[in-house]
Amino acid sequence: MSVTAPLGFVAAGVAAGIKANGARDLALVVNEGPSRAAAGVFTRNRVKAAPVLWSQQVLRGGRVKAVVLNSGGANACTGPLGFQDTHATAEKVAEVLGDSAGEIAVCSTGLIGERLPMDKVLSGIELAAGQLSRDGGLPAADAIRTTDTVSKISFRRGEGGYMVGGMAKGAGMLAPGLATMLSVITTDADLPADVLDRTLRQAVEVTFDRVDTDGCMSTNDTVLLLASGATGVVPDLDEFTAKVTEVCADLARQLVMDAEGATKAIAIEVIGAASVRDAVTVGRSVARSNLLKCAIHGEDPNWGRVLAAVGVTDAEFEPDRLNVAINGIWVCRGGAAGDDRSKVDLRPRDVTITIDLSAGPHSATIHTTDLTAEYVHENSAYST
Amino acid sequence: MSVTAPLGFVAAGVAAGIKANGARDLALVVNEGPSRAAAGVFTRNRVKAAPVLWSQQVLRGGRVKAVVLNSGGANACTGPLGFQDTHATAEKVAEVLGDSAGEIAVCSTGLIGERLPMDKVLSGIELAAGQLSRDGGLPAADAIRTTDTVSKISFRRGEGGYMVGGMAKGAGMLAPGLATMLSVITTDADLPADVLDRTLRQAVEVTFDRVDTDGCMSTNDTVLLLASGATGVVPDLDEFTAKVTEVCADLARQLVMDAEGATKAIAIEVIGAASVRDAVTVGRSVARSNLLKCAIHGEDPNWGRVLAAVGVTDAEFEPDRLNVAINGIWVCRGGAAGDDRSKVDLRPRDVTITIDLSAGPHSATIHTTDLTAEYVHENSAYST
Repeated sequence: MSVTAPLGFVAAGVAAGIKANGARDLALVVNEGPSRAAAGVFTRNRVKAAPVLWSQQVLRGGRVKAVVLNSGGANACTGPLGFQDTHATAEKVAEVLGDSAGEIAVCSTGLIGERLPMDKVLSGIELAAGQLSRDGGLPAADAIRTTDTVSKISFRRGEGGYMVGGMAKGAGMLAPGLATMLSVITTDADLPADVLDRTLRQAVEVTFDRVDTDGCMSTNDTVLLLASGATGVVPDLDEFTAKVTEVCADLARQLVMDAEGATKAIAIEVIGAASVRDAVTVGRSVARSNLLKCAIHGEDPNWGRVLAAVGVTDAEFEPDRLNVAINGIWVCRGGAAGDDRSKVDLRPRDVTITIDLSAGPHSATIHTTDLTAEYVHENSAYST
Repeated sequence: MSVTAPLGFVAAGVAAGIKANGARDLALVVNEGPSRAAAGVFTRNRVKAAPVLWSQQVLRGGRVKAVVLNSGGANACTGPLGFQDTHATAEKVAEVLGDSAGEIAVCSTGLIGERLPMDKVLSGIELAAGQLSRDGGLPAADAIRTTDTVSKISFRRGEGGYMVGGMAKGAGMLAPGLATMLSVITTDADLPADVLDRTLRQAVEVTFDRVDTDGCMSTNDTVLLLASGATGVVPDLDEFTAKVTEVCADLARQLVMDAEGATKAIAIEVIGAASVRDAVTVGRSVARSNLLKCAIHGEDPNWGRVLAAVGVTDAEFEPDRLNVAINGIWVCRGGAAGDDRSKVDLRPRDVTITIDLSAGPHSATIHTTDLTAEYVHENSAYST
C-alpha cells in the first residue's frame, strides 16, 4: 500500500540510529520506471532547510529516481555544511542504486539547527537499499514519523487500472502552505513532468494548503509526486487530478486527526464569500485564533471569538450580515446572537464551524484543531 | 493616583451587579475642566462593539466630559439594540452630570454577543455618580478588570508641574493594534484636541500596539486621552509626548506581566532591520509562534522556531545572515548554530530574544508571553 501501491515502486524503512530511541528513522522510495517523471511543491518559508534547497534543484529537471527521507533531524539552519550533508546523502543513494545524484530527492524532518549524524545516515542508506521491496510502503511511512502517533498512508485506483498511492508525516507546525509536513505520492500512470506539476499544485492547494493547525510554517515542507508509468495508462487529466486530490485530502485529514495534543478536528467552512481567496483568508484567520481554539476545546460555542477573527481580515463582508453556525446551530445571525447556544452539541470529536459572509457565491474549508494543554506540553518538551 | 492623579478629574468604581460575582464592574471618570479636549484610538477590528462605534463618533468632536466603562459584558455583536443600549448609557451619564450625551464616551469589556443588563448599568451609573471623588482612581481601575488579576495604573509628573495619569485593563486577546484593552489616560496640561490626537497616536504606536500576547484583536479596544487643563500648563510637545508614552509603556508592561496564564514576559527585540516596519513585522511573527511560546515556557532555547517564524515574513533579510540571541547568548550566528545553547539561562521570568536581521539600522521591540496550559484552561472556561 502507501507509496508502493502503484506498480514500479519499491521502498524500505529502517532504523538507522538517527533517533535516540531506536525507532525507524530512514525511508527510501525508489522508482523502477520505465518513466521517472516527477513534480514537487515546497515550503514557502524563506528559511529553507538544506534538503529543500537540494530537492528544488533536482525537481527542476522533472525527473526523480529515488527519494530518501529521514526523521530525527531537519537539517535546517545548518549552513553550508548542512547542504554538504544533503549532497552526500544524495550521492550515497546514487551510489547504492548505480544512478545519478542529480535525480535523488532528499527530505528531512525533526529538530532545526543541528547537523545530522552522517555516519548513521549513510549506513542507514545501505541498510535500506538492501531491504527495498514491493512491501516496503508501510515501513517507509513508519520511518518518517516524528511526533506522529500513527503512520499516514492512502491510495486510490484510477480508471483504466492505474493507481495513486501516498504517505505523509506531520503533526505539529502544520500551516499555511503545507506544514512540517513531508509527503510522497506515487503513481503508475504515464504522464510527463509538466502535467504532474500542474496536477500536484492543484491538488495541494485545496488539501494540504488548507490545513492550519497552529499557524506555524516549517522550513522543510515537501510534497513530491513520482510517476513510474509502469501500467502504461495515460489517464484523463481531470480524472487523474481528482484521484491525486483525493489521496492528498485523505492524507491531510489524517494529519489533522493526529495533530499534536488535539482532541477536536475542526472544519472551518466559509460560505457566501466574494471570492475563494476571501473564503480562505477568513478560514485561516479563524483557524489561527488561539482564543477560539481554546473555547472549542472547552466545548464552548463562543461565536464572538469567531466574529473577532473574521473582523481582522480584509475580506468583503458587512459586520451586520455575518451568520455563524456551530455544528449546524446558527448561533449568530446578522452579526448578533441567533439561535440558543445551549442547543450546540460540542461533545463529538468532529466540529464544523460555518461562517456565512453574505457577500458572494464562493466557499472554502480550512481544517484545524483545538488548542490544548497537551499541545503546550508536547511543544515545551520537544527538544529535550 | 491612576486617572485622578492629574487635577480636574474625579472618578468612581462601583459594583453595579453586571458581574455575577458581586465585584466592581462599572467605572466613571469625569473631567471637571476647565478644558475637555480629548482624543481616542480604537480597535482596527472591522467587527466593532457598539461602545466603540459610539465613542468614535463622540471623539470626532474632540471633547469628552466623562467616560463610563463597564466590565462584565462587551456589548459587541449585539446589533441595533446593543447600540441603543450604549446610547442609553451615555444619556444616563449626561443626565446625572447635567451635561450632553454627545460628549460622553462609553467603553465595555467582557463576553461578546450578549446584551448588557441595562437596569443594572443605569442604576450603577447613579451609584457611581454619588461616589465621584479625587480618590476614585483606584476603584475605577479595579472596576474595569475582567480576567486581570491586578489593577493597572500609572502616572508621571511633567516639567512645569502638570501630571499624566492612566489606568488600563486587558489580560487576554492582546494583539495587533491594541488588545481587549481599555485604557483611559488623563492630564491636567492644557492642550487642544488635535495635539492630543497626534500625541496619543504616537504613544500608542510604540507601546500598546507592540504588545501581542495571543495574536487576537478585540472588538472593543479603546485608548482615550483626556485633558482638563486644570494646571494651565502648556507643555513642550516633545516632553509631553514622552510622558504620555512613558505612561502607556508602563501600562502596556503591566498588561504583559498579567497576561492570562503567562509565566514568562518575552521581549522580542528586532535589530538590524531595513525599516521599523520590517522590525515590527518580524517581531510580531515571532511573538505569534505558538511553537516558540511553548518552547520558552519549557525553558528551551529553541532558536530554530525563531528562524522559522522570521522566514514567513516579507522583511528584508538573507537567511544566512540572521543572528539570534536568547537572554544574551548568540545561539544562532549566520543562520546556523552559534554559541552553546546550554549557556542560555531561561529560568528568570523576563526573557529577551534578540533577532539581528543584518539588513539595516532600524529596530523595534514586541512584547509577548509564553503559551501555557493555564492559558488554555482560562480560555476554555471563560464563558462558563
